[in-house]
Amino acid sequence: MTQPAPQFILTLSCPNRPGIVAAVSTFLFEKGCNILEAQQFDDTESGRFFMRVVLNVVEGNVSVDALREAFADIAETFKLNWTLRDKAEKRRVLLLVSKFDHCLADLLYRWRIGEIPMEITGIISNHPIETYTHLDFDGIPFHHLPVTKDSKMEQEAQVWRIFQSTGSEVAVLARYMQVLSDGLSAKLSGKCINIHHSFLPGFKGAKPYHQAHVRGVKLIGATAHYVTSDLDEGPIIEQDVERISHQDSPDDLVRKGRDIERRVLARALAWHLQDRAIMNGKKTVVFRD
Amino acid sequence: MTQPAPQFILTLSCPNRPGIVAAVSTFLFEKGCNILEAQQFDDTESGRFFMRVVLNVVEGNVSVDALREAFADIAETFKLNWTLRDKAEKRRVLLLVSKFDHCLADLLYRWRIGEIPMEITGIISNHPIETYTHLDFDGIPFHHLPVTKDSKMEQEAQVWRIFQSTGSEVAVLARYMQVLSDGLSAKLSGKCINIHHSFLPGFKGAKPYHQAHVRGVKLIGATAHYVTSDLDEGPIIEQDVERISHQDSPDDLVRKGRDIERRVLARALAWHLQDRAIMNGKKTVVFRD
Amino acid sequence: MTQPAPQFILTLSCPNRPGIVAAVSTFLFEKGCNILEAQQFDDTESGRFFMRVVLNVVEGNVSVDALREAFADIAETFKLNWTLRDKAEKRRVLLLVSKFDHCLADLLYRWRIGEIPMEITGIISNHPIETYTHLDFDGIPFHHLPVTKDSKMEQEAQVWRIFQSTGSEVAVLARYMQVLSDGLSAKLSGKCINIHHSFLPGFKGAKPYHQAHVRGVKLIGATAHYVTSDLDEGPIIEQDVERISHQDSPDDLVRKGRDIERRVLARALAWHLQDRAIMNGKKTVVFRD
Amino acid sequence: MTQPAPQFILTLSCPNRPGIVAAVSTFLFEKGCNILEAQQFDDTESGRFFMRVVLNVVEGNVSVDALREAFADIAETFKLNWTLRDKAEKRRVLLLVSKFDHCLADLLYRWRIGEIPMEITGIISNHPIETYTHLDFDGIPFHHLPVTKDSKMEQEAQVWRIFQSTGSEVAVLARYMQVLSDGLSAKLSGKCINIHHSFLPGFKGAKPYHQAHVRGVKLIGATAHYVTSDLDEGPIIEQDVERISHQDSPDDLVRKGRDIERRVLARALAWHLQDRAIMNGKKTVVFRD
Repeated sequence: MTQPAPQFILTLSCPNRPGIVAAVSTFLFEKGCNILEAQQFDDTESGRFFMRVVLNVVEGNVSVDALREAFADIAETFKLNWTLRDKAEKRRVLLLVSKFDHCLADLLYRWRIGEIPMEITGIISNHPIETYTHLDFDGIPFHHLPVTKDSKMEQEAQVWRIFQSTGSEVAVLARYMQVLSDGLSAKLSGKCINIHHSFLPGFKGAKPYHQAHVRGVKLIGATAHYVTSDLDEGPIIEQDVERISHQDSPDDLVRKGRDIERRVLARALAWHLQDRAIMNGKKTVVFRD
Repeated sequence: MTQPAPQFILTLSCPNRPGIVAAVSTFLFEKGCNILEAQQFDDTESGRFFMRVVLNVVEGNVSVDALREAFADIAETFKLNWTLRDKAEKRRVLLLVSKFDHCLADLLYRWRIGEIPMEITGIISNHPIETYTHLDFDGIPFHHLPVTKDSKMEQEAQVWRIFQSTGSEVAVLARYMQVLSDGLSAKLSGKCINIHHSFLPGFKGAKPYHQAHVRGVKLIGATAHYVTSDLDEGPIIEQDVERISHQDSPDDLVRKGRDIERRVLARALAWHLQDRAIMNGKKTVVFRD
Repeated sequence: MTQPAPQFILTLSCPNRPGIVAAVSTFLFEKGCNILEAQQFDDTESGRFFMRVVLNVVEGNVSVDALREAFADIAETFKLNWTLRDKAEKRRVLLLVSKFDHCLADLLYRWRIGEIPMEITGIISNHPIETYTHLDFDGIPFHHLPVTKDSKMEQEAQVWRIFQSTGSEVAVLARYMQVLSDGLSAKLSGKCINIHHSFLPGFKGAKPYHQAHVRGVKLIGATAHYVTSDLDEGPIIEQDVERISHQDSPDDLVRKGRDIERRVLARALAWHLQDRAIMNGKKTVVFRD
Repeated sequence: MTQPAPQFILTLSCPNRPGIVAAVSTFLFEKGCNILEAQQFDDTESGRFFMRVVLNVVEGNVSVDALREAFADIAETFKLNWTLRDKAEKRRVLLLVSKFDHCLADLLYRWRIGEIPMEITGIISNHPIETYTHLDFDGIPFHHLPVTKDSKMEQEAQVWRIFQSTGSEVAVLARYMQVLSDGLSAKLSGKCINIHHSFLPGFKGAKPYHQAHVRGVKLIGATAHYVTSDLDEGPIIEQDVERISHQDSPDDLVRKGRDIERRVLARALAWHLQDRAIMNGKKTVVFRD
C-alpha cells in the first residue's frame, strides 16, 4: 500500500490525432517514470482527446518542476491543455455556505479524517459565525459577508479578493444559496463547484424539492456541477438519486435530499481535487475512482 | 403459500374524515372476511384518503358481487370512489406498440410465465405483423393500423373501437411512439399507461436520450405514467435510472435505456393490475409490493 | 404541516385472527381519534399479525395515558404485544462508540438539527474523550470505559448500569467494535442496534472489507441489525450497498463503506425510534417511511 | 458514429514493469494505428499489469493477422498474456439452459436485435425442445441432453464435444441448474460464465432465495462469475441487487430475482465478449463500458 516514491498526476486534453499516447508514455519512460493508472477518452463529437495518468518516478530523482519543464515540448507539439501535479500536494479550497450546513459539516468531517486531502483556505457565509457554534472550524478563517441586492457587487468583490489572496484553487458552493453574478462566474469558470438540490435538468430554479413534490416524481436527486454564467446549466460532474413515495411531504424530501446532496458534492469535489473531472464544453469527462 | 379461499381487492378514496377505517373493517369483519393486507394514505394537501385492502372470506361463502352490493351503503355514506375485485380475475389489457419491441417482448414473456396475470385482448401496431416474426403472439389478435397525419383521427377511432369491443380495461403504450389526441387521451384517462424514455420532467419531447447526451447528465431514466391530454405530464406511476458516463454515445444510452424502460413499464402495469396505483389529481398513490 | 393536536403511535403484534383491525379502529374512533397512517403485515409463516398506527385526537382531550388504560381490554382479548407512545416524546438513546467516529459524528449532526429527535443519554467509549475533541458533545455525559479481556465483565456491568440509571430505551453500537457478551446481549434484546460493516450474511466476523477485497465482489454493503447473543445473526433492520471495482484497495472499501454505514445506521435508528421496526423472530417487520 | 476503418481490441496482462505502455503505444503508432480507448490496471498485490486497447488502422491497410504477427516480439519481451481481435468478429457462444428460461429468452432477444453481437453455436438443455415452443431459436441447433447421476460423465463428454466441434469460445450457464464436474470446469476455465441467483458469497448452494427469505435480508442479488472447479467461488464478473421487504414471500424473491439475474448475466456476457472482463487469480479485472 505504501508508495515511497512520490506520485504525480498528469492530465491533458487536445485535438485528437495518432501518436499522443505513444509520445507521452515514451517521454515518461525515458524520464524514469512508471505509469500506475491511466485513463483516456476520445470524444468523437468534439474531436478532442482527454487523458489522466498517475505516475511515479522509479529511476533517478526527477522533481515535478523538472518534469513539467521537460514536458513543454510535447505539450507544444500536440497543443495540449495540461496539468502536472504532485499527488501529495494539498490543494487549496474556499468554502461558501449558508445556514444550511449539512454539506459544510460533511466536508469538514471528511477533511478532518483525511478522506478529502485539501487545505481549506476559508469559509465564507452570509450568516454570522454564531450560526456554526456546533462545528469545529479548527482555525480556518471565517468571513461573514452578508449580501443584499444592493451590496451584492461589493460582496462578490470581497469573495474574489479572498479567493485570490488565499491562493485558492477551487471555490465550493456548499449550499451557498446565492446566485453568482455573470462576472464572478466567469472569473471562477472551471474552478467553482455548486451542489444543486435537484436532479437536473428537472426542477431548475428555486425550491426544487417542492417542485418535485408537486410533480409527483418517484425519485429525487442532487447534482454537482461546475458553475458557469448559465445558471443551473453548468457542466455536470456527478448526480445521484433516492427513491421517494406519495407519502413523502416536501419536508421529507428536504430531509432525504440532504443525504444525497452531501455525498454527491463530496464525490464531485474529491474527483476535482484528484484531477478526475475535466470540463469538455458544456459537459465533463469524469475518470471515476 | 396456497390460499384455498378466494381473495378480493378493495380500493377506495374519499374526503378524509374520522371513522372510515372503523366502518370498512367492521363491515368486512361482519361479512366473515379477514384482512390480509391493508395500506392507506391520508393526503393532507388534498384532504383525500386512499385505502387498499386485500381480504379473503373465512366464514360463509360470500361472492364478490354480494359483497359489492352490501358495501354500497358505506360507499354512499363516505362518498367513496371504490373498486372491489376478485384477485384471481385476469384483467383485460390492450397493447399498442411500434417497431421498438423490447417492452412488448418483455411483457409477453412475463405474461406467458404467469408473472403478470392478464388477458391480452390485442396488439395494435402501425407496423405489419411481419415486424414481429420472432415473437410468439400465441393467438393474441394483431391489428395493423398504420397511422399518418391525415388518418390519425380514423386510426384512433379504430383503436377506441377495439378497446371497447374487446372489453379492455387498460391500454398500454409499450413504446407506441405516437402521441394520442386529446380526445382519445380523455377517453382513456386512468386506463392508459405510457412508458416515456426519459426521467421526467427532464427531457420531455422527442429523442430524450439524445437530449440527455447533449446535456451530459450522469444518470438516465425512464418513466411510466398515466396518459392524460397533457403530454408528458401525466401522473407518474414509476421511474428508475441507470448510471452512465461521458463514454456513452447516444446509441449506448438507447441500449441502456431499453433495460430501464422494460422493467419500469412492467412494474407500473403489474401495480395497476393489482390496484396498487391510484390516480390522485396530477399525481399517483402507489401502494408498492 | 403543523398538527396542533398531539399524535400518538400505536404498534401491536399478535396471533392473527379476523376482527383485529375492526376492533382497534372502532376503539380509536369511539375515543375521538383519527387514523393518520396505518400499516399492517400478516405473516402467513409465523401466523402473527403486525400493525402500526399513527393517530391524533380530534374530539375531546384524551391523554396518551388514558388511551393506554382504555386499550387494555382489547389488548387482553387479542393477546397483543403493544406500545402506545406520544409521537413528540423524545426517546432516550445511549451511544457506544470506538475511535471510528463517522457514525457518531453523523448521528450527532442529525440529532442537533432535529432530523432524529431523541435524547442522547450518554456516550460510552473505550477511548478517552480527547479522541473526540473535534466533536461537540454539547453536554452529553461521556463515559470512558476501557475494556480488556479481563475487565470485560466489569465494563459491561458498568454499561448496563449506565443504560438503566439513565432510563435509556435503546443502545446504539455506532461502530463500537466490541462483541457484547451473551449476558448483556440478552438484557438488551430488542433494545440494541448494531451497524455491521458488511452486507450480511456475507463476510461475517473481522475485517469484512478485507474479506470483500479478497473475494473480489462488485458491491459492498453495511447492515444494521438488532443485537442478539448470536453474533452477526441478529434480525436485520436495514442494508444498503455501493458499487466497487477491481481498482478499489481495502482502504478504498473502508472509505466507501463509511458512507454506507452511517446512512444505514441512521435509517435503522430513526425507524426504531418511530416504532417502524419490529422484531419478528429472527427477522424484522419494517414499516418504512 | 460510423467508423469505416476496422477496429481491433488488444488485451494484455503481464508482470508489471516500466515501459509497457510506451512500448505498446509506440508499436501501434508505428503500425499506423490510432488508439480509440485504453484502460489499464496495475494490481499492486499480484504485481500484474492489465490493459485493454481499442484501436483502428488509420494509415495503410494492416490486417489483424499481420498486426498479431508483428506484435509477437513485444509480447515475448514483456511476457504478455494477450489477445488481439477484430471488434466486428462475432464470437461463438454455446448456451446451456434448464426449464427456467428467463435468461435464455433475454439473451436471445439481445442477440436478435444485435445488442449482444455473437454467433450462438447451440443450445443445450436437459429438457426437450417442446419446453421452449414459445421461443424462436431461429435455426440455432438444439441439443436435448438429459442428465442423471449415472449419465453425468457421459453427458458432460457430449457437452464438451459440442463445445469443441462448434468452435465455441464461451459457454454460458444461463440458469443451467447443473453443477459441472471438476473435469469439465477445468477444461472450460475462463471460458464459462454462470449466473448464480444470490449475492455471493451470501447464500451459496441450493435455494438461495429461500435462504434469503429465512435470514430476512433487505436486499437480494445475483452474481455472474467464471466457472471454476470451486463451486460458487469462481471469479465474480458482475453483481447487482434489488430492495425487498418483510412482505416478500420466497416466490416474490424468485420473481424479483429473475430481473436481476437476466441483466447481470447479459452484462457479464457482453463484457466478456468485448474483452472487458479478464481473470486475475480468484478475482476479475472488468474494464466497464
